[in-house]
Amino acid sequence: MTFRSDIEIARDARKQPIQDIGAKLDIPSAHLLPYGHDKAKISQDFISSVQDRPNGKLILVTAINPTPAGEGKTTTTVGLGDGLNRIGKKAAVCIREASLGPCFGMKGGAAGGGYAQVVPMEEMNLHFTGDFHAITSAHNLLSAMIDNHIYWGNELEIDERRIVWRRVMDMNDRALRDIVVSLGGVANGFPRQTGFDITVASEVMAILCLATDLNDLERRLGDIVVAYTRERKPIFARDIKADGAMTVLLKDAMQPNLVQTLENNPAFVHGGPFANIAHGCNSVIATTTALKLADYVVTEAGFGADLGAEKFMNIKCRKAGIAPDAVVIVATVRAMKMNGGVAKADLGAENVAAVAAGCPNLGRHIGNVKSFGVPVVVAINHFAGDTEAEVQAVKDYVAEQGAEAVLCKHWADGGAGAEDLARKVVALAESGKAQFAPLYPDDMPLFEKIQTIAKRIYHADEVLADAKIRAQLREWEEAGYGHLPVCMAKTQYSFTTDPGRRGAPVGHSVPVREVRLSAGAGFVVVICGEIMTMPGLPRVPSAEAIRLNDAGQIEGLF
Amino acid sequence: MTFRSDIEIARDARKQPIQDIGAKLDIPSAHLLPYGHDKAKISQDFISSVQDRPNGKLILVTAINPTPAGEGKTTTTVGLGDGLNRIGKKAAVCIREASLGPCFGMKGGAAGGGYAQVVPMEEMNLHFTGDFHAITSAHNLLSAMIDNHIYWGNELEIDERRIVWRRVMDMNDRALRDIVVSLGGVANGFPRQTGFDITVASEVMAILCLATDLNDLERRLGDIVVAYTRERKPIFARDIKADGAMTVLLKDAMQPNLVQTLENNPAFVHGGPFANIAHGCNSVIATTTALKLADYVVTEAGFGADLGAEKFMNIKCRKAGIAPDAVVIVATVRAMKMNGGVAKADLGAENVAAVAAGCPNLGRHIGNVKSFGVPVVVAINHFAGDTEAEVQAVKDYVAEQGAEAVLCKHWADGGAGAEDLARKVVALAESGKAQFAPLYPDDMPLFEKIQTIAKRIYHADEVLADAKIRAQLREWEEAGYGHLPVCMAKTQYSFTTDPGRRGAPVGHSVPVREVRLSAGAGFVVVICGEIMTMPGLPRVPSAEAIRLNDAGQIEGLF
Repeated sequence: MTFRSDIEIARDARKQPIQDIGAKLDIPSAHLLPYGHDKAKISQDFISSVQDRPNGKLILVTAINPTPAGEGKTTTTVGLGDGLNRIGKKAAVCIREASLGPCFGMKGGAAGGGYAQVVPMEEMNLHFTGDFHAITSAHNLLSAMIDNHIYWGNELEIDERRIVWRRVMDMNDRALRDIVVSLGGVANGFPRQTGFDITVASEVMAILCLATDLNDLERRLGDIVVAYTRERKPIFARDIKADGAMTVLLKDAMQPNLVQTLENNPAFVHGGPFANIAHGCNSVIATTTALKLADYVVTEAGFGADLGAEKFMNIKCRKAGIAPDAVVIVATVRAMKMNGGVAKADLGAENVAAVAAGCPNLGRHIGNVKSFGVPVVVAINHFAGDTEAEVQAVKDYVAEQGAEAVLCKHWADGGAGAEDLARKVVALAESGKAQFAPLYPDDMPLFEKIQTIAKRIYHADEVLADAKIRAQLREWEEAGYGHLPVCMAKTQYSFTTDPGRRGAPVGHSVPVREVRLSAGAGFVVVICGEIMTMPGLPRVPSAEAIRLNDAGQIEGLF
Repeated sequence: MTFRSDIEIARDARKQPIQDIGAKLDIPSAHLLPYGHDKAKISQDFISSVQDRPNGKLILVTAINPTPAGEGKTTTTVGLGDGLNRIGKKAAVCIREASLGPCFGMKGGAAGGGYAQVVPMEEMNLHFTGDFHAITSAHNLLSAMIDNHIYWGNELEIDERRIVWRRVMDMNDRALRDIVVSLGGVANGFPRQTGFDITVASEVMAILCLATDLNDLERRLGDIVVAYTRERKPIFARDIKADGAMTVLLKDAMQPNLVQTLENNPAFVHGGPFANIAHGCNSVIATTTALKLADYVVTEAGFGADLGAEKFMNIKCRKAGIAPDAVVIVATVRAMKMNGGVAKADLGAENVAAVAAGCPNLGRHIGNVKSFGVPVVVAINHFAGDTEAEVQAVKDYVAEQGAEAVLCKHWADGGAGAEDLARKVVALAESGKAQFAPLYPDDMPLFEKIQTIAKRIYHADEVLADAKIRAQLREWEEAGYGHLPVCMAKTQYSFTTDPGRRGAPVGHSVPVREVRLSAGAGFVVVICGEIMTMPGLPRVPSAEAIRLNDAGQIEGLF
């Protein structure tokens, strides 16, 4: 068998008309708003009409800390969805939309890989159905209205030095990180320093992904804190009167997108918030809608389980009133080897001892996820070079932790390669074992919430924070934001804040560098390390090689 | 009969599925890429497949110089299209897309008015099919790649003071007009002064609207001059290697959009370049495709005939190899009165003398259009307060000019109100009288082209330009750009460069303030006056009142 790239496989997909995919979930074609023949939005009216139905089972796919070896979380999400359909379950997957900007930096994007992909891949990595463009417009309308308010007299007495709302663009453009605007004299306003973030870092993105409906969306948009007065009084988007128009701009974007897997099973692809300064999950509305339409909904969370699953449970599930019935932790033999100290170049050789030495990273994630009261299964995403002894070493280790590891070959074989995993997931979900509870109650003080996550998930000894940061948290508590969950922003590569520390370290501290209030999204961002909210392009951007070939196909994007 | 607003009429539209509208032009539904149920793009494959067909008749709708009284050019374009269909012609209209940003400043937008509208009106004024967002992305990708090139070593030796490519956003945001980017130290690049224009002012917009196909698009994008070296050597987008990726981003946007009139006739709505620094017409690909599919294609050009029709003839027709078979000049009794010296507040009272006094503005446009070798008819767009005597005064005047004026009531009556105009247009188009020729040959020197337009269209005595400007034009001629047409940017309110001078002035001069090269679009922009390429928001932006009502309808946008 010759090796075929993801894009070659995707191009050969035998796609069904999107109406047929919708029909699998009993969505009438009048309620499917098509975008071309292979993409559609599901109408708000239809979503409203199914609210009284019971929910299907919710399966979260998460992973060990990512390594350069690659884990295949999305691939496993898609493979499991196809596997569930193959064993007779009505299943749908829910994943995030890709950001356009980064595709022009490094090759990448993609939605799954091998024979476990979602299509149409090209469109999903470009404009797709325009959701991110709508978010960019809504965000920047608010920005323009803030400067316009000041220009015309600043009735709200905004302190121009304390405007916290920046602008956004879905592009890797480092030149826009730090800028001065309103130069050029009286007609252009008051010069001040500000900057652009990438669109996925916008609070509007996080809001869209957490809002339950259009009314909730408008309320949350109004709650955004955009600036402060000299007396530190917060100014809200509602004060600027931007919330209504922002909602209008986001009306279509709030409707979840439906596409299909290579095996023609339904896939919801909707929303894509940052996984550091935001919660890193697809939209609540996509997940809750899928739960009304399918018996099994497989979704994923960003980064490893210490960040992604923690936020999925403590932010998304808490706020949306949903709970996972089972959790899949994706691991690979190669990643275990790297955690066991093997360099990327040496991954080809069998090394059972290194696999065993790397397993404690996986073990800690298993324990962490179990602490939320949900049953766990480990998916070993198979790579061609993995040996039987290496796979067995992972299985043995996981068994010692009181869980089961299932070998999956969906990358090579599609849903057929994930049938064993699907059966195990069904057994766990149907067992009724899940007794989900978030890690901390709403009314715990903010700093204690940070400590709880640091100790119970990262297994750190302590949280370090300046008096200034603690005072800020207390100030927000007094202002009525104490009930919010915290959104941790730290490196995804380690349980610690040092990206180089693999495995399952203990004895470390978690230094908090900065805290930010996302009052509209409804969380307090806790920044523990360097967080880049506007990426740059590399020396040779992939854009230089991207073009249409003579057949009209896109080259160089993947 | 109670008065009904445009939006009320539009909401009650009995829209047909877009596939049925496509079927009226024999477009197979496989080649219609739907966006919802009432919008679609026409596939590039289908467009390629109809290239050998003969062209239908092309009708241009233009107008007198705009006045605050309103002329109704788009309304007449739509009404004439419906009228032609009513009298048994297979007709389509081709109009421009609306820009999103300005809708949040002043109430407006809209595509036609009364019973001569194109729907869905709300979507057309918001994200529509995402074309403008794609243009924004393509433009800003090039911007990011320029600064990124400099960041990584500036191999092309770009003079950072001579970067002419700015950034764009589809938003009225005066704070972005004049900015300094790349602050913040080594990681963010080299600080320099630049700014944002509104997306419709992007050269990418003009290029998309003049490109004949994707290959031509890519070539034109590569031809964009983005900067100069210290030795004044131009640096092209092709040198930055951005042309391929920009084409990929514009692939879908190049496909024309199909929607419908209130009377369910096909309407192409595609592209929307500025009418001052660009040519102000819908896309060439929409017009040429419509000509292959319909027997009559009614299109319009921006501003009055001195700017819009002139550019339509000298830029769009010249470059696309098309020619109008007849031209409709829209005038109103109210506008004639204002040209005759009546203030807006006094337009209600009958004033035949003022109407007659204002007619020479119309007369000059008639003569100008005729000078292109095309037959002319005047459409008097009827307003409720117009008296018979006033209408007759216009008709008499037009008859003296050797043309005919037809009273039209499409605003109140839809296509039925434009049947007379439709019959007259058919008679002119079928007469074979049209012997179109552009005003000047390709090989005329650039400055003479400016003089030709100023003298023959504006009826000015002379063109004033610094030695520096003339030297710049000669430099471009030497660099091989001498064959390009010129794109005049001046006030639309007068034949002169003084917006206050109505009527048909003589004896004036045309001062050229600045010239710019749009090498990708393929014209030299000649700026005669203050041109604003990034609007601001007013004191009370319409955005403050825009919101969704309880029925989910958009309020405040119109």
